Amino acid sequence: MQELFHLQAVCPETGARAGKLVTPHGTVETPVFMPVGSQGTVKTLTPPDLESLGVQIILANTYHLYLRPGIDTVKELGGLHRFMAWNGPILTDSGGFQIFSLGHLRRINDEGALFRSHIDGSEQFLTPELAIRAQEDLGADVIMVLDECPPYGGTRDAIRRATERTHLWAEKSRKFHKREDQALFGIVQGGTFADLRRQSVEYLRSLDFPGYAVGGLSLGEPKEITYSVLADTITMLPADKPRYLMGVGSPEDLVECVARGADMFDSALPTRLARNGALFGENRRINIFNSRFEREAGPLDRGCDCYTCRTFPAAYLHHLFKARELLAYRLATIHNIRYIVRLMAKTRKAIQDGAYGDFKKEFLAGYEPTDPGIRAEQKRKWLLSRGVEGSP
Amino acid sequence: MQELFHLQAVCPETGARAGKLVTPHGTVETPVFMPVGSQGTVKTLTPPDLESLGVQIILANTYHLYLRPGIDTVKELGGLHRFMAWNGPILTDSGGFQIFSLGHLRRINDEGALFRSHIDGSEQFLTPELAIRAQEDLGADVIMVLDECPPYGGTRDAIRRATERTHLWAEKSRKFHKREDQALFGIVQGGTFADLRRQSVEYLRSLDFPGYAVGGLSLGEPKEITYSVLADTITMLPADKPRYLMGVGSPEDLVECVARGADMFDSALPTRLARNGALFGENRRINIFNSRFEREAGPLDRGCDCYTCRTFPAAYLHHLFKARELLAYRLATIHNIRYIVRLMAKTRKAIQDGAYGDFKKEFLAGYEPTDPGIRAEQKRKWLLSRGVEGSP
Repeated sequence: MQELFHLQAVCPETGARAGKLVTPHGTVETPVFMPVGSQGTVKTLTPPDLESLGVQIILANTYHLYLRPGIDTVKELGGLHRFMAWNGPILTDSGGFQIFSLGHLRRINDEGALFRSHIDGSEQFLTPELAIRAQEDLGADVIMVLDECPPYGGTRDAIRRATERTHLWAEKSRKFHKREDQALFGIVQGGTFADLRRQSVEYLRSLDFPGYAVGGLSLGEPKEITYSVLADTITMLPADKPRYLMGVGSPEDLVECVARGADMFDSALPTRLARNGALFGENRRINIFNSRFEREAGPLDRGCDCYTCRTFPAAYLHHLFKARELLAYRLATIHNIRYIVRLMAKTRKAIQDGAYGDFKKEFLAGYEPTDPGIRAEQKRKWLLSRGVEGSP
Repeated sequence: MQELFHLQAVCPETGARAGKLVTPHGTVETPVFMPVGSQGTVKTLTPPDLESLGVQIILANTYHLYLRPGIDTVKELGGLHRFMAWNGPILTDSGGFQIFSLGHLRRINDEGALFRSHIDGSEQFLTPELAIRAQEDLGADVIMVLDECPPYGGTRDAIRRATERTHLWAEKSRKFHKREDQALFGIVQGGTFADLRRQSVEYLRSLDFPGYAVGGLSLGEPKEITYSVLADTITMLPADKPRYLMGVGSPEDLVECVARGADMFDSALPTRLARNGALFGENRRINIFNSRFEREAGPLDRGCDCYTCRTFPAAYLHHLFKARELLAYRLATIHNIRYIVRLMAKTRKAIQDGAYGDFKKEFLAGYEPTDPGIRAEQKRKWLLSRGVEGSP
């Protein structure tokens, strides 16, 4: 297999990185955002839609596909790429996060996690080995070890135990994984505890993964903590391996976390916000339900080159949302994904130009992130961090 | 304005016709099926989707656009073509049918109809003149007079009164209509009464409309009655004008009604069935929820050239429907519309080849129309015909 990651440029001021991730299904330019296709579809979009938006790699959830339609089914149909007709790179996560958020976790031990399916209530036992087997059968280009992802706010002791189990599972996964055309990433845990994070990085580095994810962040903790834990963790990771920050996808977070040296990101936020009518504007969130769009003949966002903005008056989008027309959700998803794709391309260019510090300052100075959509999302994460079921 | 309709071929055996409808936004080859875009969108599809499916003309509902977003809004934004970014021909209906089915009709007299909006309960008074004004403002290529469309099963006297009012409104509409770039169609009523239908045709012909619609059919009456009333009505209509049969859109009905000389059709059936997982197969309806699709690697329909069938295993579509993924509804709509577009092209070719009788026989011999989806639709129409609120 070809070398997975090529580091191309590092911003001397911030540490932001531009690179290339080489996979069997194509090369990905980083920093990159991976839209979430939980159930084998980035909601509302077809593969040609994704291509035309400039999406380079998508994420799918082993947890969801494991429960429905079942890994065997996808395998029998030729794997996930063929099943969903997406020929670009795919990253699958292992299911750990969903077991703790969506599933009803019943019991966890060093062997694995017993949970109830959120679909039919059936009891399921997922082990690190099964998670690898499932991801081998799905056939993604980048796959993840099963980890234990405890909610934010746990005691140091609880976080320590979860981190240690994550390490045990990482080791089992590393041994069990056979497919040489897949890159298996380790996941750093440790909550917001600097020493646990350090131990986690050290342990995972000793297993020599081709890439490392930072898990257990963006779970409701204050943003400054997200950023500082990320920064501390990343400086300990090897520079020549890709670094994937899990579960982050708001424009301001992406810009902040790129500055801290993360290369890859995923989050359902951009697509979920879109379906709720919260759209990314040049320097703010836009609520398409706002009555000021009722007769707006211009596009939603003049600076945007997406199909939606090039084609329709904002009033049309407003109308579709008010009428709950299915087309609304697709047009809005197209816009939000295109916004994020363009944002990531801008971060990459700024890094390559050696100007990421200025780019970041300028972007954040003008950006007003908070609107009802994002507040609802924050509330959801807060509930989630307290063990209340959400829908990530 | 150029001549609206050009008759190109007539099947000597059946009376089926092939023609051309010339509108300011393009030429339409008939027989043609018009997908329904009630609220300014053919549900789930963009204009490029429609184009790639071979859709030549779409229908929009004045009733829906009148209530939301409001005719003034669409007018201010440059008309319906611009609002929804569809540059092909559009036909708008007048709102009559929806007032009787969706709206809560309060009172009707020769001036117009008082009804309550199904959206906010507000009282609305729609007159023939307002319906014309609205359609002039929307700017469709073909527009309809306001008619009174009584449910199937009314007494002869009730149908006679409704038919007479339809005539009065047709006359008012004809006088009131000013835009010369729009073709205004009269609507023949008369229920299932041959003499009322004859009187209706005679009266409307005296007003010399550029085209004629046959209304008040496919409201729950037995199919043989639909077909025979249609046949009787159409023979009385002028051969050089287009004939539009309202509310018919199942494959078998289209084939039957083309044979009786109808040129244009509309119905929400193909798109609604699609969203419910009932898909048109080569010679039958397919229920995509059927477990036989669980691991089906082949396409939904081998004979189909639509994007969905060319791209995805049927198992994927099955999965999307079971998971209630929004993409399911778009992929299914693409398939059903493409099926109907191809069917209409086949009818046209058969007519031009002088072989429509054989085509029809062959098609209907192999066709099994009934499945749970269509039975539900029949029940809905039956309820509708009895004045119970449905969702046409």
